[in-house]
Amino acid sequence: MPLALTRGDPSGIGLEIALKAWALSHEDPDAEPFLIVAGTDHLGSLAASLGMDVKVEKIETAAQAPAVFACALPVLDLSHPVLGQPGSPDPRDASGTIASIERCVGLVKSGEASGLVTNPIAKEVLYRAGFAHPGHTEFLGELARRDFGENARPVMMLWSPELAVVPATIHVPLARVPALLTRSLIVETGRIVAHDLALKFGIAAPRLAFTGLNPHAGEGGDMGREEIEIIAPALAELASEGIKVSGPHPADTLFHAAARQKYDAVIAMYHDQALIPIKTLAFDSAVNVTLGLPFIRTSPDHGTAFDIAGKGLANPASLMAALQLAGRLAQNRCPAR
Amino acid sequence: MPLALTRGDPSGIGLEIALKAWALSHEDPDAEPFLIVAGTDHLGSLAASLGMDVKVEKIETAAQAPAVFACALPVLDLSHPVLGQPGSPDPRDASGTIASIERCVGLVKSGEASGLVTNPIAKEVLYRAGFAHPGHTEFLGELARRDFGENARPVMMLWSPELAVVPATIHVPLARVPALLTRSLIVETGRIVAHDLALKFGIAAPRLAFTGLNPHAGEGGDMGREEIEIIAPALAELASEGIKVSGPHPADTLFHAAARQKYDAVIAMYHDQALIPIKTLAFDSAVNVTLGLPFIRTSPDHGTAFDIAGKGLANPASLMAALQLAGRLAQNRCPAR
Repeated sequence: MPLALTRGDPSGIGLEIALKAWALSHEDPDAEPFLIVAGTDHLGSLAASLGMDVKVEKIETAAQAPAVFACALPVLDLSHPVLGQPGSPDPRDASGTIASIERCVGLVKSGEASGLVTNPIAKEVLYRAGFAHPGHTEFLGELARRDFGENARPVMMLWSPELAVVPATIHVPLARVPALLTRSLIVETGRIVAHDLALKFGIAAPRLAFTGLNPHAGEGGDMGREEIEIIAPALAELASEGIKVSGPHPADTLFHAAARQKYDAVIAMYHDQALIPIKTLAFDSAVNVTLGLPFIRTSPDHGTAFDIAGKGLANPASLMAALQLAGRLAQNRCPAR
Repeated sequence: MPLALTRGDPSGIGLEIALKAWALSHEDPDAEPFLIVAGTDHLGSLAASLGMDVKVEKIETAAQAPAVFACALPVLDLSHPVLGQPGSPDPRDASGTIASIERCVGLVKSGEASGLVTNPIAKEVLYRAGFAHPGHTEFLGELARRDFGENARPVMMLWSPELAVVPATIHVPLARVPALLTRSLIVETGRIVAHDLALKFGIAAPRLAFTGLNPHAGEGGDMGREEIEIIAPALAELASEGIKVSGPHPADTLFHAAARQKYDAVIAMYHDQALIPIKTLAFDSAVNVTLGLPFIRTSPDHGTAFDIAGKGLANPASLMAALQLAGRLAQNRCPAR
């Protein structure tokens, strides 16, 4: 069963890295075949304009993808014409961008695809076209509710072979983090991470390490009390449910090689605390994995990169890592919950 | 001219790592000789109890240290008896701990030592003995004022061969960081770092990279406005003074190998933003360097480690890196300002 890859914003680097990922993996017997939902002709023209020797082939059903994959990039055709140019996105392409995502989620729902891999979208372009969701992941949460009938709570994990991290709060100003950090947020996040590391990653008893919010994890209350009042009680609650937790740990000493042996994932309190260590260690190969969804979803850990789109400069490493991880998870995956 | 090493809290690992650092470096012709201000007999007993074949030799003046160093660890004797045991500090040892620091600063002031390297102290132990300074570095700032007549503003830099970082705010609760972050704080910090990278590190035109405070450096104001209202104006002011600055950069993408080629030091907005990347990359070998003092001062990037003191388990790597860097800076150093 193939993985389903969305096209992302067609003016970004998504299609280029998809072509490159296919070129670099189609002869690898260990690579998981994938299909892309995009405009077949548009993809073919892009390959030609980049001087890439990549064959794209329109398929009618996802089931054809594995056989085609060795010889051509299998495409489930998206009828929407692409109006934007590389580097110059067009809000009129939003409907196609969204349709590609919906189609891919549908394939996962129907069991025709084993997992979803998404190319980057540009929120501001979608907003101009009336997109009503805060972001990609929230939209997938909405599709999970609509298509799967599950009250999904998506949780972003950044994964690399060296390190997996989950920020408890994400895209908010730093000044708002302390007020947003609640015991229930930490407990819910911990539950979802533990559940999905077991279910999707096949880790029998996942070990979760939590950072503190403050320097030195508050140093016993001298430098902030959130560790004592919020984080430690949340960890006690998770431990009482049988989840293996440790912390709150000083964040600065939690990410070196020896420390990383002691946990399967770190739950950090805010964006930079989680993303600094993983992007320092695994800049090109970190993968965004959405936990808490009723299906497998990974994506490259970068944006549309409009500034280099269409120039042949885009690095497919993160997309390839996303495809590889999704393939691995698809094999681990227990039957749907 | 030797480096002057303080004893630190005698119940911590400082003396043990000093013995180990001497054992590992005294035959190295490139190693900078150092002396320690401590109890000679106490040091000798500690070496014996640890089963270490280290000779300690009492010297009368710092000038004797270089000749002695190849055969024995040179000690300027501290008359204060040590009352604490390894792992069990005693507040009555505070006066000796402080006297060692004052004596070493005096040696640097008189030109008998080329730089100061400090072993860890335990603030809470000193507080119980009436120590009135917030910490080690602030105390050195006070000694700089008292002994050198300079209105020092100490700035902590963490240095490793891979990366040098300076947190603009340090040991404060995260919730207080946004209010503490002012344009003048950033400008003053930038000036001191640029000045000392030139003067002490011999970097002709230091390149300083500044992080933003918020995720994605605020993403144009969507996730916080400190970048626009505080950090960018501070950088403009520094640039107008001829200092090479860049930023505010998203902190998560600033520390991977390729990014690190573009600056000589990063000025981060708060503790974990600076310390996570350097401790992830260089956990054992990062060195604490105090900029803004009228002398060279380095120290290992760890504490007293009372939990492992006296057991022979302490790793001297960071102290050795601190001695090595101080030696290098002493050679670079232009005449005193």
